[in-house]
Amino acid sequence: MEDVGPVEAVVRLRSGRAPERVRALVGARVDQDASLADLGRAERCGARLVVPEDDEWPALPLHALTLALGEEPTEPAGQSDRTRAPVPPLALWVRGTARLDELVDRSVAIVGSRASTAYGEHVAAELGHQLGERGWTVVSGGAFGIDAAAHRGALAAEAPTLAVLACGVDRPYPAAHGALFHRIADNGLMVSEWPPGCAPLRHRFLVRNRLIAALTRGTVVVEAAARSGAQATARRAQDLGRPVLVVPGPVTSALSVGCHELLRDEDLGAVLVTSAAQVLEAVGRIGDDLAPPVEGPSSPRDGLSDVALRVLDACPVRTGVPPDRLAAVAGCDVLDVLRVLPALELADLVEWTGTGWRLAL
Amino acid sequence: MEDVGPVEAVVRLRSGRAPERVRALVGARVDQDASLADLGRAERCGARLVVPEDDEWPALPLHALTLALGEEPTEPAGQSDRTRAPVPPLALWVRGTARLDELVDRSVAIVGSRASTAYGEHVAAELGHQLGERGWTVVSGGAFGIDAAAHRGALAAEAPTLAVLACGVDRPYPAAHGALFHRIADNGLMVSEWPPGCAPLRHRFLVRNRLIAALTRGTVVVEAAARSGAQATARRAQDLGRPVLVVPGPVTSALSVGCHELLRDEDLGAVLVTSAAQVLEAVGRIGDDLAPPVEGPSSPRDGLSDVALRVLDACPVRTGVPPDRLAAVAGCDVLDVLRVLPALELADLVEWTGTGWRLAL
Repeated sequence: MEDVGPVEAVVRLRSGRAPERVRALVGARVDQDASLADLGRAERCGARLVVPEDDEWPALPLHALTLALGEEPTEPAGQSDRTRAPVPPLALWVRGTARLDELVDRSVAIVGSRASTAYGEHVAAELGHQLGERGWTVVSGGAFGIDAAAHRGALAAEAPTLAVLACGVDRPYPAAHGALFHRIADNGLMVSEWPPGCAPLRHRFLVRNRLIAALTRGTVVVEAAARSGAQATARRAQDLGRPVLVVPGPVTSALSVGCHELLRDEDLGAVLVTSAAQVLEAVGRIGDDLAPPVEGPSSPRDGLSDVALRVLDACPVRTGVPPDRLAAVAGCDVLDVLRVLPALELADLVEWTGTGWRLAL
Repeated sequence: MEDVGPVEAVVRLRSGRAPERVRALVGARVDQDASLADLGRAERCGARLVVPEDDEWPALPLHALTLALGEEPTEPAGQSDRTRAPVPPLALWVRGTARLDELVDRSVAIVGSRASTAYGEHVAAELGHQLGERGWTVVSGGAFGIDAAAHRGALAAEAPTLAVLACGVDRPYPAAHGALFHRIADNGLMVSEWPPGCAPLRHRFLVRNRLIAALTRGTVVVEAAARSGAQATARRAQDLGRPVLVVPGPVTSALSVGCHELLRDEDLGAVLVTSAAQVLEAVGRIGDDLAPPVEGPSSPRDGLSDVALRVLDACPVRTGVPPDRLAAVAGCDVLDVLRVLPALELADLVEWTGTGWRLAL
C-alpha cells in the first residue's frame, strides 16, 4: 500500500506478485473480489466510500494513528497484534448526508457499558444533549446502553451524531436499533471500515474502538465494569494523545468500577468530569470553553473578618449579653467587639435588645 | 508559652506582666480563672486533661502542626487568621479509658456532610467497619450524617473510634448523639481542646478540623456539598502533608459535588478511593497494605492469540464451515486456521460437526 498505492497493491496481490509476508496476512481472502458487489450494496442503502483523496476525508484526526503506528517497536515481538495496532483506515464506508470531516472537527466520544444503569443512561443522554446544543458532535458505537443514550441525547438536541460500527453500515446491529440508526443517518453519519453486509465479529469492535478514539477530541467514559471494552477504548484514546474523561458513579455500583479504576490510574491521567461544560473545558480550545466553577450557596457571613465571625458565634439566640461577655466567649478584646458590632448589625446578623446583643433571627 | 512555659505564662497574664500583644489576644478572658472548676467538671464526667508532658500525648502526629506553623509567613498580613492557623493544641481534654497516642497511631479520619444521603451513610459505615476490623481507628467529628455513620461502623466492628469535638467532652452535641457518645467513650475516646461545659461555637468547628487532620494518617471525604466544611478539612489535611482520599458518588447528587471538585483539583492531589483496602493502600505502611487489583470475570478467551480470537469470531453458531471459509472471514491463512483449531477445540470453544467447524455452546 505504502509503496505502490492501493490499486496496484490489489493487482499485485491478485496476480500473486505480492511479497510472501503480505500474502500470508491477507490469507484466504486474496481470491475474493467483492468490490463491485460492495459498491452496489452501498449505493442501495445510500452509503458511499470515502477515501483519503476525498475532500471530506478526516485527515487531521486520523493522522494521530499514523503517528502512533510510527512509534510501534521495530521488532515484531514488541508490536501490537493486528486487532490492536494503531493502523489508519484505508477507506471508510459512510452513510448519511453530512460531510465526515465537518462532523468530526468538533466531536467528543461518549462510550460505556451496554449493560448500563438508569443513572449511566441519564448522564450519557444529558451529556449528549448538552454537547449537541453547544454544536459538538457526539461520536459513539451505536450499541445498547450508554452508546444509545448518548446518540439519543444528541438527537434530542437536533444535533448530528456519528455512529462508528463494527459491521456494515447497512446492517443494523443490534437489530433493535434499526429506528435509531435511521435517525442517526438522517441527521448525522453511520461510519464503518467494513463494507456493507459485513457481520459484527467480536474482534472488529476492538479494531473499531481505535477509530472512535482517533476521530474525536476526547473520550468520555460514562459507565464501565471492571475489564470492560469502554476501559479499552479509553486507553486507546490515551495512546493517541486524546484526553480521557471519566464520569464517576456510586462506589456501590459494579458499572462504575471500571470508571473508578481509570481515575485511580495515575499513568493514564484521566480527568473526572461531571458535566458537559467540564468535558468541553478539557477538549475545547484553550480559553474558549472554560467550565464555570461550581458555586456553593452564598451567605451573609461571607467576607466577615475572623474576629467578626467569632463575635457573631458568641452571640446568644435569646437573651442579649453585654460586649464584655461577648469578648470573653469569643476570646478577644472588648474593643474588638465594639469595633465589629456595627457591621454585624448593619448586615442584620445581630440586634440590640435594650440590655445586650443577641442573634437577629 | 514558648518562652516561659504554660504555668508562668498564666501567672504573668493574670498579673498584667504579659506583653501587650499577648494581652490583646487573650482579651476579656484574662480575668477569668476556671481551671479548678474545669478540672472538677472533667473528673465528674470521667475525663482527664492530657498535656504534652504525658506519655499518651500524640507528639508525633501533632508535630505536623508545629512544622506547618513554622512555614507561616513572617509578616502578619500573610498569616492564617486565628481560626485557621495550624497551631498545635496546648492540651487535650480526653474522655474514655484508651490511651490517646495508641489510638491515633494507626488512624484514619472519615469526614463528610451532616445532610448526608443513604448512599453516603452506607459507604461511611462500611469504611468505618472495615477499617475497624483491620485494626485502624476511625476518627471523626461526632456530627450527624457521615461522621455518625463512620463512628457507628467502627463500633459495629467492636473497634475503638475517636470523636474530636468542637465543645466540651461532657456536652453531647448534637444532643441526639448522647447514646452514641457514651458508646464511643466506652470503646474509644472523646477528645476536645475546650474544657468541659464549653459550647459548640461555630468557629470552633474550623479550629477543631485541623486537629482531625493532624491526628490521622489521612482524611477520607465521603460526601461533601460544594463549599462545605468537609472540603475545608480535606484542604487542612493537605496542608499538613496528609493524603486526601475522596469517595466519588453520582454526578447527579448535590452531596457529591464537593467530592468531585476535590478530585478535579490537580493541585490538591486527592486520590479517589472506593474501598477500605484502597484507603489503607494510601495511608498504610508501604508494601504492607497494598489493595488487591479490581478483577473482572475471567473467560476461556483469555490468553488466546490474536489469530485464535479471529478464527473463533469467524466460527458460525449453527452450521459448521470448513477451514478455508474460516480463514476468509478471519482474514488469515488456512494454515493459521489449522494451527489454532486444536487449541480452540481443547478449550471447548469450537466443535466439529462432521462437515465443518462451529462454536461450541
